[in-house]
Amino acid sequence: MSRKPTIADVAALAGVSVAAVSKVVNGKGGISAPTRERVLTAASKLRWTPSAAAVALRSAKTRAIGMVAKRSPDLLSADPHFTLLISGLESELSPLGYGLLLHIVGEEPSAEEAAYRRLADERRVDGVVLTESRIGDTRFELLRTLGVNAVLIGTPWRADPVPSVQATCLDHGIRAAVDHLVDHGHRRVAYVSGPEDRVHTVYRRRVFEDALAAHDLAPSHSVVSDFTAAGAVEAIGGLLADRRRPTAVLFANDSMAVAGMSAARRLGVDVPGELSVIGHDDLPLGELVYPQLTTVRQDLVGLGRAAARVLLASLGEVEGAAVDVRPPEMVVRESTGPAPGRT
Amino acid sequence: MSRKPTIADVAALAGVSVAAVSKVVNGKGGISAPTRERVLTAASKLRWTPSAAAVALRSAKTRAIGMVAKRSPDLLSADPHFTLLISGLESELSPLGYGLLLHIVGEEPSAEEAAYRRLADERRVDGVVLTESRIGDTRFELLRTLGVNAVLIGTPWRADPVPSVQATCLDHGIRAAVDHLVDHGHRRVAYVSGPEDRVHTVYRRRVFEDALAAHDLAPSHSVVSDFTAAGAVEAIGGLLADRRRPTAVLFANDSMAVAGMSAARRLGVDVPGELSVIGHDDLPLGELVYPQLTTVRQDLVGLGRAAARVLLASLGEVEGAAVDVRPPEMVVRESTGPAPGRT
Repeated sequence: MSRKPTIADVAALAGVSVAAVSKVVNGKGGISAPTRERVLTAASKLRWTPSAAAVALRSAKTRAIGMVAKRSPDLLSADPHFTLLISGLESELSPLGYGLLLHIVGEEPSAEEAAYRRLADERRVDGVVLTESRIGDTRFELLRTLGVNAVLIGTPWRADPVPSVQATCLDHGIRAAVDHLVDHGHRRVAYVSGPEDRVHTVYRRRVFEDALAAHDLAPSHSVVSDFTAAGAVEAIGGLLADRRRPTAVLFANDSMAVAGMSAARRLGVDVPGELSVIGHDDLPLGELVYPQLTTVRQDLVGLGRAAARVLLASLGEVEGAAVDVRPPEMVVRESTGPAPGRT
Repeated sequence: MSRKPTIADVAALAGVSVAAVSKVVNGKGGISAPTRERVLTAASKLRWTPSAAAVALRSAKTRAIGMVAKRSPDLLSADPHFTLLISGLESELSPLGYGLLLHIVGEEPSAEEAAYRRLADERRVDGVVLTESRIGDTRFELLRTLGVNAVLIGTPWRADPVPSVQATCLDHGIRAAVDHLVDHGHRRVAYVSGPEDRVHTVYRRRVFEDALAAHDLAPSHSVVSDFTAAGAVEAIGGLLADRRRPTAVLFANDSMAVAGMSAARRLGVDVPGELSVIGHDDLPLGELVYPQLTTVRQDLVGLGRAAARVLLASLGEVEGAAVDVRPPEMVVRESTGPAPGRT
């Protein structure tokens, strides 16, 4: 036949009712194995595939997962950790025929809420992945109201508002970074964080302070910045202008660390000779630059995979077996060395 | 009412048939303006939204656009030009309630074809965006066979297989880069390109050669690389080992340029004092590093926007007005300077 085959054609060829074909397609029970076989053979012979929209309408599944990124396009490409999370998500979603529906909504708060409302109202996704856990996060309540299945990548700001995935031994990477610096004779160590409305920003700064305290030290400086290159350049300018300037700086992400390191070198400060620099995340960027960046690696691909598994398990697509997320670890490259005056 | 409102509730409140509500929702004709108004008022009062799946089933529209990226996750995050294209796409799609369905399939050729087949068979998208135009591209034929609406970002390898978007004056950026180097006394200029199966790779290398020829010069070296940092490091090692080594190098993307520049400096070669380096694309990365990267800017956000408009116009969502894509232009920063021995 030249016209597109329909479910009725499949039913006729298989010698069953349309309802029976529908049951097979939607994985409903009450169909014998031989009947199921006949339906699948007929569907295959006629090259008939149920439309995703039709399946979705009947089964209330869309086979898509949503991700709303509240970032300006510029910041998104300067700090490509999203790309690694997405790679991890895709590696679990793709084999099961799930797609990732991406929305980049910019920094406007109402745009984010509108995006979630549209995903829910129009039933576009079976669940959403949240990133960048915020203090006082309003997304959990919004998504509960909307009835949307969600998983958070990161630590929730209060107990269990939604399922979440995170590495074990979350403090190990930053502790190792601090120990590495102190072992190399550094006593004046500064921290440049991102916006303090993020849960991880505050947590990591506390781990940093705690790790220094274990050596009877306190931070020489603690600067709250904004994750941008411009913010990092401003921060490093302030630190280096201080008469008692730090001999080492930890930054809250790799882009800030590279921008800060570059700004220091432009001011004539040798890295790591006069200033050691450590980043966070281990993005490919850190290996491209000279000196190569010492950093705290996060298993971003593993976090993406784990988040996808949680959603897929809640949708009954996979057994509940969790994906292991590797603990943060320190990666020593070229941007750290002995404190000045120490060999 | 506490239960979720249905199309029947809207029809009842508006005093029309369910079929009339459906026609309004699906933008079909045959409904008077006052009736349309009554339906929309009733829908708004009841806070009723048609389910995307239901609308899609009736109207055969999914309100999603697909993008299949055939890249390894690593390369994807090292070369984040996709993020800028996606930002451009989203800025046109989001306001119309369209989503972007992303698939990262890795380098395996069969995985790419399988992804397109699934998008088509399951009718998941109303169209797809293709990037990285290839010589002998088989995607056009595949998508025609599958009946999928497509737009290409870039220059097609042969005339008009699918609609495409590209900048005007496509050669201006690289010509300006070559002129800039020659004006600064460079006579031995090398080119490090990406894989030659890309249309743009071959095109840009020819523009480079042509621009040098206008100054009665030929490339000192022409290296075919693979867009990776490791490839760039290997290429620069070979160039610098040559007794008649170049005084300037153009790279086919910014990540390679930064990796090459870093490798040169690690070998003790001053940039730009002994070697000028130019990238391509103008990704945020180029501003983070020291020295900051001189590069050829591509309007990637504009290309994404233009591609989205072409698809939306073919779907009858917008009038055909095209988005202007800015021509490539040179951005002079710190990685280029006078040829050695010239002040």
